[in-house]
Amino acid sequence: MLPIRKTAKQGKRGILERLDAGEIVIGDGGFVFALEKRGYVKAGPWTPEATVEHPEAVRQLHREFLRAGSNVLQTFTFYASEDKLENRGNYVAEKISCQKVNEAACDIAREVANEGDALVAGGVSQTPSYLSCKDKSEVKAAFQKQLEVFMKKNVDFLIAEYFEHVEEAVWAVEVLKESGKPVAATMCIGPEGDMHGVPPGQCAVQLVKAGASIVGVNCHFDPETSIETVRLMKEGLQAAKLKAHLMCQPLAFHTPDCGKQGFIDLPEFPFGLEPRIATRWDIQKYARKAYDLGIRYIGGCCGFEPYHIRAIAEELGPERGFLPEASEKHGSWGDNLSMHTKPWVRARARKEYWENLKPASGRPYCPCMSKPDGWGVTKGAKELMQQKEATTEQQLKELFQKKKF
Amino acid sequence: MLPIRKTAKQGKRGILERLDAGEIVIGDGGFVFALEKRGYVKAGPWTPEATVEHPEAVRQLHREFLRAGSNVLQTFTFYASEDKLENRGNYVAEKISCQKVNEAACDIAREVANEGDALVAGGVSQTPSYLSCKDKSEVKAAFQKQLEVFMKKNVDFLIAEYFEHVEEAVWAVEVLKESGKPVAATMCIGPEGDMHGVPPGQCAVQLVKAGASIVGVNCHFDPETSIETVRLMKEGLQAAKLKAHLMCQPLAFHTPDCGKQGFIDLPEFPFGLEPRIATRWDIQKYARKAYDLGIRYIGGCCGFEPYHIRAIAEELGPERGFLPEASEKHGSWGDNLSMHTKPWVRARARKEYWENLKPASGRPYCPCMSKPDGWGVTKGAKELMQQKEATTEQQLKELFQKKKF
Amino acid sequence: MLPIRKTAKQGKRGILERLDAGEIVIGDGGFVFALEKRGYVKAGPWTPEATVEHPEAVRQLHREFLRAGSNVLQTFTFYASEDKLENRGNYVAEKISCQKVNEAACDIAREVANEGDALVAGGVSQTPSYLSCKDKSEVKAAFQKQLEVFMKKNVDFLIAEYFEHVEEAVWAVEVLKESGKPVAATMCIGPEGDMHGVPPGQCAVQLVKAGASIVGVNCHFDPETSIETVRLMKEGLQAAKLKAHLMCQPLAFHTPDCGKQGFIDLPEFPFGLEPRIATRWDIQKYARKAYDLGIRYIGGCCGFEPYHIRAIAEELGPERGFLPEASEKHGSWGDNLSMHTKPWVRARARKEYWENLKPASGRPYCPCMSKPDGWGVTKGAKELMQQKEATTEQQLKELFQKKKF
Amino acid sequence: MLPIRKTAKQGKRGILERLDAGEIVIGDGGFVFALEKRGYVKAGPWTPEATVEHPEAVRQLHREFLRAGSNVLQTFTFYASEDKLENRGNYVAEKISCQKVNEAACDIAREVANEGDALVAGGVSQTPSYLSCKDKSEVKAAFQKQLEVFMKKNVDFLIAEYFEHVEEAVWAVEVLKESGKPVAATMCIGPEGDMHGVPPGQCAVQLVKAGASIVGVNCHFDPETSIETVRLMKEGLQAAKLKAHLMCQPLAFHTPDCGKQGFIDLPEFPFGLEPRIATRWDIQKYARKAYDLGIRYIGGCCGFEPYHIRAIAEELGPERGFLPEASEKHGSWGDNLSMHTKPWVRARARKEYWENLKPASGRPYCPCMSKPDGWGVTKGAKELMQQKEATTEQQLKELFQKKKF
Repeated sequence: MLPIRKTAKQGKRGILERLDAGEIVIGDGGFVFALEKRGYVKAGPWTPEATVEHPEAVRQLHREFLRAGSNVLQTFTFYASEDKLENRGNYVAEKISCQKVNEAACDIAREVANEGDALVAGGVSQTPSYLSCKDKSEVKAAFQKQLEVFMKKNVDFLIAEYFEHVEEAVWAVEVLKESGKPVAATMCIGPEGDMHGVPPGQCAVQLVKAGASIVGVNCHFDPETSIETVRLMKEGLQAAKLKAHLMCQPLAFHTPDCGKQGFIDLPEFPFGLEPRIATRWDIQKYARKAYDLGIRYIGGCCGFEPYHIRAIAEELGPERGFLPEASEKHGSWGDNLSMHTKPWVRARARKEYWENLKPASGRPYCPCMSKPDGWGVTKGAKELMQQKEATTEQQLKELFQKKKF
Repeated sequence: MLPIRKTAKQGKRGILERLDAGEIVIGDGGFVFALEKRGYVKAGPWTPEATVEHPEAVRQLHREFLRAGSNVLQTFTFYASEDKLENRGNYVAEKISCQKVNEAACDIAREVANEGDALVAGGVSQTPSYLSCKDKSEVKAAFQKQLEVFMKKNVDFLIAEYFEHVEEAVWAVEVLKESGKPVAATMCIGPEGDMHGVPPGQCAVQLVKAGASIVGVNCHFDPETSIETVRLMKEGLQAAKLKAHLMCQPLAFHTPDCGKQGFIDLPEFPFGLEPRIATRWDIQKYARKAYDLGIRYIGGCCGFEPYHIRAIAEELGPERGFLPEASEKHGSWGDNLSMHTKPWVRARARKEYWENLKPASGRPYCPCMSKPDGWGVTKGAKELMQQKEATTEQQLKELFQKKKF
Repeated sequence: MLPIRKTAKQGKRGILERLDAGEIVIGDGGFVFALEKRGYVKAGPWTPEATVEHPEAVRQLHREFLRAGSNVLQTFTFYASEDKLENRGNYVAEKISCQKVNEAACDIAREVANEGDALVAGGVSQTPSYLSCKDKSEVKAAFQKQLEVFMKKNVDFLIAEYFEHVEEAVWAVEVLKESGKPVAATMCIGPEGDMHGVPPGQCAVQLVKAGASIVGVNCHFDPETSIETVRLMKEGLQAAKLKAHLMCQPLAFHTPDCGKQGFIDLPEFPFGLEPRIATRWDIQKYARKAYDLGIRYIGGCCGFEPYHIRAIAEELGPERGFLPEASEKHGSWGDNLSMHTKPWVRARARKEYWENLKPASGRPYCPCMSKPDGWGVTKGAKELMQQKEATTEQQLKELFQKKKF
Repeated sequence: MLPIRKTAKQGKRGILERLDAGEIVIGDGGFVFALEKRGYVKAGPWTPEATVEHPEAVRQLHREFLRAGSNVLQTFTFYASEDKLENRGNYVAEKISCQKVNEAACDIAREVANEGDALVAGGVSQTPSYLSCKDKSEVKAAFQKQLEVFMKKNVDFLIAEYFEHVEEAVWAVEVLKESGKPVAATMCIGPEGDMHGVPPGQCAVQLVKAGASIVGVNCHFDPETSIETVRLMKEGLQAAKLKAHLMCQPLAFHTPDCGKQGFIDLPEFPFGLEPRIATRWDIQKYARKAYDLGIRYIGGCCGFEPYHIRAIAEELGPERGFLPEASEKHGSWGDNLSMHTKPWVRARARKEYWENLKPASGRPYCPCMSKPDGWGVTKGAKELMQQKEATTEQQLKELFQKKKF
């Protein structure tokens, strides 16, 4: 039985020190989906004003990930760029300034990180400005603004994440790199590559050349697909004789039917994804596969709840030598079920049971796979333009007509 | 657009005043499953020592349900009887007294209830003692012990919930009734009735005769099945010319394949239930059906997250005249998706889309339905006996052999 | 290894002699579905004019069932009553007389029966006249007309099959009984009983009292459901202290989702039923269960192809002491696969492989279950009235509107 | 309404005359699967000795395809090479000479072809000799032997079909080409190419260079996958500036989950494929897609029953100007259902109903997709060696162990 440790007590060692030493770094899970279900984030805009409005809820989620084994707490600054906070009728920026949202996010993450010994990572993500074809300097200025907060609050390192176009990701890395802090960069792409058709291997090469020390993918695809994408990135880096640490933060949803645009394109996005949620055992298999491929920064994105992160920490417990605090409330591969009242549930207290289970959906009138919408619009398309005002009735009507139900 | 209200500002009106006036009372969701995923409850024993160990986590979950629209906060005292806290190697009672767990639960619930204007309900549930064939007085003593705490902490009313045998439920109601506070009683049974074969209609009659003012079901079955069971209870009461308020707190898991023992009997219980999780739209349909049948106490049990409770409050918004606080972050039937960056997701901002969606499981190698284990053991069976010690290796081995994989 | 025999060489022993002696009698499969796929029967009217138009095709199908093990060849006279041959634009009766169709059917069946040693059974089925509320004498006259042919052609016994209303089935039995030949009667009902709500047990009692020596079910439901219905019939007869042989001729389609009206009510009927087709192993399991319940006349209906009948004969080979001729081309439980070129297919040459296989549908965009149409119209409804003329455009339009897609 | 014609009355026009004139040529369906279900072919060896043993059954199946619209009747000579007739305990060659089987096949095909006006095609397929690494001359000698019969019986043209290795297919084409008759060549490969990794485009090029006038695929994959493979062949030919007619004869089973080895590799092969059977509507969609890609020789392979071939002829009726004889018993897109007794079935007499139906499997305990066996053995592997003797118990045991259930 492995000992339980709050988090790796590694003093103030930085992200690169840990990775360079061959250690496993466990990321956290996605905040927007988790907090949407808890009632603090609005699906649609997906913006993080909860850091100001309900800090206790954000704090609690950070704490749960920390307990579950996360070594990194990402500031809840997803989509917290000025242009996104006031996009399409989401008038957050009118009430709360972009700066306040970002600062509060940093403060909360640091507070909880200090409860254990986790690192704080400041994150930037893709901008409506880029999709609206604003020029390089304007897009970079948006990142710069967020970076200023991260520097003021002295985060431990930086992540450029959730980019669909490598061009924009490179711009983000360039901005972040100037800070002197280590930079990680992840794209939300699958094996087919970015929205302009740049294959994963080439994306990785461009990101490393721009200054990223850690590259990989996050969001948009399930663990299996994401690992395949990272494999292609690894191949690309090897071919280019470049070195970087590999990182993977996939969805906790099964998406075998996704096209290039990922789960956003599935008919179930975002309010009918429940049947796709990964079990803890799916995540243990993911952690093992990721580890075997040489990925050492292993976390999650949308759909990851604290118990999914714990599953990573438990699967890699033997390699790390300890279990996370939340494992006090969880037995490896279900062994606490030996305490269950019902004898047939006690009989499930073993790895081979859960490893082989093919869980039923309980939905006999539903199919197994969906056809993605496949609209195929990307940067520059009229419908992707940033607009402050709410989508009008007329605009919605046009969309409904375009979409055959 | 309906106004948003923190909770029904109804002064200090009690549960029966509200129900007698024809108001809808919204319950909360299940704590053990939600807190297990957050890392604070151990699946297997399912006991609530987190009230002492991590009050902030329990408080936060209460708060989320309150925001989502719950009018009742149940004390997190599920399975908090002395005999359960020390069953099968779960040595909680050695470290934390049963009384402390129950008292802390009351304090937290009251604290959060006062943030809005919700009622606090103290809950008792079935005991290992009953299954171990202890006599009536011993079983009643266990309930009595919990009741003392509830009286001391002055909860607003009492719930006897999660009973598989009406005989034990009646004992619980008898104990609770002596307090003078209103008593609700729910059984975890389906249309086939209790474990001794007593049909739902008869169960309801016995519970009302024992003193329950509110009767219904909780846990073990999905919303559709649970409503059917309450329908049978209603018929039974009408035939017996008895009156009581109806209550329903089902699972948020689809269980069309359950046998008499409910979801505990499904192969996926408890760690492979993800594909069965209800969407918010499933829950809106449930709320409507429950309302149409005349059920006025409508809540949830295991699997219900805050967004599921909000779905009840939104569906019944027109009847209640207001929306819960958490609806600030949610548009009716997906209408906030009009703020989404991707145009095809904006095209989903309408009721007919979500109402008709048949969500795919994303699991093409898995079936839709499972065969329940169907061991068919109940009260008195050797394997159901309460024992303080952990299940031994030998006992487990016998179980594994009995269970064909 | 059991010997192969063309058919049971039992001289000219009649159906009751065989059943009274406790022998297993194997029926044949459904002709309308098999010949529709071969190009000789029109789905919709489902009438048997192929006996005159293409006798070689009917003869070949009889021969295949004989080879597969059938002890009874039913004359292909399904729906060959005068009123059905000229219903709703199916102007068969104008070209070929009802009598000719029935006579040709008898001749072909007898010719093939003599190639082995099978019995010939003349069959009548429910009439449009009954649904159109014609009186008893008119309905009986239709049966009488078919019976005259059967007597002239001297069939070995008679079957009244495919009745949805026990009242009409009783009338048919009364007519057939006058011939002095043994009469079997099967209804196309499920456990819920006939279209007027008469439960299976009572149906069986009425049929036996009317003169049937053999009772059971055919068509409309899958093997599992059909066996359950026969079980209820058996119980009914036992309760009434009546004796009769039991018979079962179900669909070879899986229909767990059927309502009272059977597979006709499923959205897939009749041109999308392929994914529901039973495997030979499904049928072996059916044969065993039917035998274990005491059913001794075991056959099939729509969907049964010759290899399904062979599966019955192979499963019950040990009890009968021989295999059918077609087993020369089939190994028990797949053992001829040991001759396959591919080694991994040779590895499937064993019972446990096929017995446990859960066959995939190969249709990941389709559900597992369907909602039956559930129009709930029956005898007397306007839309069920017999009419000679084709359904008009106007009538079709009304139907399309009634049916929401 | 299109006129019905027995088959295209085109005098004695050859296959190339028709294709060169831009006409659609409809092939027939697979004989081994259809006759296995009828009781005349043994699954495992799959050899065609029924031509001698039961010519009436072979004749009837040819006739059904002719009625359904086939313009070509392939001699039932699949796997009728000497080495296959005596492989692994299938001692056919001891009783019936290879020559007799082939001659009888030609006679029957010709007899039925003359009933309409179809062409007769003599077919050869891959040999155990090739898999056993026999040299080119030995393999060619096997084809030569079959060709001699085809020349003696004067078939109209020749087909080399069901080849997994393009090398062997080229040898076959070379042999057949010497006859002076037109040669078609189809491989049983998917988009990944042949078993040695030669991509489809290159396979097509080699076959055309070897002398084939018509190239394409048959068997092993579903219609959708097969069309994709032919598309790749077409691209390959275009790139090489070669011209040939395109041909497609896929399975009538859905196989989205197949690997490179095709459906033989699926766990359901060959006795659990029922849920995968294509509906007639699936086949109409296939016919349309094939036509749109420029394929003009459109037929089927295993799983195709006469009604599937009729579906091709009906879909392409407008282009051809007539319907096949069997359409007398079938209405376009279900319109004969207007004659059905039940009103809700009459409401299905329209294209949009069947076109959009997603048929349920009726198998809620089964998955949608399977994992192929993926043994990955091919030419030269020990287990693929031809052997006259039956597979021994010891050999089977080794296979069972290798195969984890």
